[in-house]
Amino acid sequence: MRLVRFSSGTSPAVLGVLLGNRVHALTDLVPNAPSDQRDVIADWDRLSTAIAAAVPSTGGLPLDQVTLRAPIARPGKILGIGLNYADHIEESKDAGLTIPTSQVWFAKLPTSVNDPDGDIELPKASPMLDYEVELVAVIGRGGRHISREEAPAHVFGYAVGNDYTVRDWQHRTPQWTVGKSFDTHCPFGPAIVTADEVSDPHALDIRCFVNGELRQNSNTRHLVFNLWDQIAELSQAMTLEPGDLIFTGTPGGIGFGSKPYRPLKVDDVVRSEIDGIGTIENRVVQEP
Amino acid sequence: MRLVRFSSGTSPAVLGVLLGNRVHALTDLVPNAPSDQRDVIADWDRLSTAIAAAVPSTGGLPLDQVTLRAPIARPGKILGIGLNYADHIEESKDAGLTIPTSQVWFAKLPTSVNDPDGDIELPKASPMLDYEVELVAVIGRGGRHISREEAPAHVFGYAVGNDYTVRDWQHRTPQWTVGKSFDTHCPFGPAIVTADEVSDPHALDIRCFVNGELRQNSNTRHLVFNLWDQIAELSQAMTLEPGDLIFTGTPGGIGFGSKPYRPLKVDDVVRSEIDGIGTIENRVVQEP
Repeated sequence: MRLVRFSSGTSPAVLGVLLGNRVHALTDLVPNAPSDQRDVIADWDRLSTAIAAAVPSTGGLPLDQVTLRAPIARPGKILGIGLNYADHIEESKDAGLTIPTSQVWFAKLPTSVNDPDGDIELPKASPMLDYEVELVAVIGRGGRHISREEAPAHVFGYAVGNDYTVRDWQHRTPQWTVGKSFDTHCPFGPAIVTADEVSDPHALDIRCFVNGELRQNSNTRHLVFNLWDQIAELSQAMTLEPGDLIFTGTPGGIGFGSKPYRPLKVDDVVRSEIDGIGTIENRVVQEP
Repeated sequence: MRLVRFSSGTSPAVLGVLLGNRVHALTDLVPNAPSDQRDVIADWDRLSTAIAAAVPSTGGLPLDQVTLRAPIARPGKILGIGLNYADHIEESKDAGLTIPTSQVWFAKLPTSVNDPDGDIELPKASPMLDYEVELVAVIGRGGRHISREEAPAHVFGYAVGNDYTVRDWQHRTPQWTVGKSFDTHCPFGPAIVTADEVSDPHALDIRCFVNGELRQNSNTRHLVFNLWDQIAELSQAMTLEPGDLIFTGTPGGIGFGSKPYRPLKVDDVVRSEIDGIGTIENRVVQEP
């Protein structure tokens, strides 16, 4: 199943299910379904049965007549792991970053959430905007002290994300959080692909193009700490909840790793894709 | 005005107003008032007038018959600034921390929120639990690119907070976020004191006691970056929203700054107080 949030014309965004190339409003399939995707995820055992029973052969809206929105309007937590592909660690060493012995986590704050194809703002505060394509895991069943072995049962699904980053703000203090949390810098989607449709999240080709030029090209098998390690680590400290997002790391090829450094410019188009999950595409615009 | 959230007996927590030593349910004063404190804050111009008109001379519940809960159940963002009192910077130098030239921000994730007098868990994952009393500012009117001069108009009110921290998790990677975000480690309250009752947030005595022993004792005038600087900095990157929390920094005297290091132990009682704002008190318990 592919869960989305979408808007059509001037109507407010609603939750939906993507079936082929048509989008069905969730409340058309299941009356009284929740309006917050986190509640849908938390009640998925019940809702998935109801949705499957209601799947229509007709109806809905063609995908090209709607705007896909962030699949979860306001995730409770968005956690990102740094330095989690060997080639990305190598290209980051000039910034003083080396292979971590522990997982390096930061937060992207929820005001940074953006639609999968939303415009990304080149902020007034900096010209050093950079891209980082990532596999995003969506937590399903929450919990604390989740073991590596139990971790797969706590993942609801997957999306493509791009961890846009303002490099000078990231590195001018030891803490990356603000540099990772500029408004519009956390697009993800296009849908949440439920975990049953992803046979192995650690065998997915992942790519990022800027203006059609392939910049990042790897496979999730190269994660230093895999998703199960990540869930086990985080849940030692905090309760993971339905709809929390985990950005699982970015491979090599970021603009900051180029010599000379190639920051994103206005009108650049960044296409992020993961096989079997989908594609998101963002245009860079000047912050108004 | 002092805004609270409280529960009585086995009833669910509700929003309330503290008048003297009595707590009034907000919906007793203003029928159809919102149930989320963030919505109350966002609609404060209207609600404050209605509350003032409805203030009763009788009724309500005695403060000692209710349990005060976190004044905002789930803040959208909780931002904390590190190394923001000179004496705390001095005591942290053995951890490699020095006077910052830029503001050092981290996030406390919303699952760490706790009641003002809630128990603090000594986690299974570490014995290195530490306290950090802080003045907490609550954002009222949201915005982006808020200047220092405009910043006071964006502060709704103040609370006492304690930025409980797991020191080994904070320092085993360059990023502090996980070590700052253990469940139960973000108590604040006892109320949100509206800004009109605080003549100068940069002239408040702030103290922390462990088992009655004074450990931290300073005044908010010693902040390196004051609250207006903080709001100006953060809002260059992100939109601040009603109910967002800013932990403005902790003074010297943390356990980690003692030689030998004095971590908190089970049954320790930590009392955090700021003159004119209030007191919160937390007992350390073993994580179950």
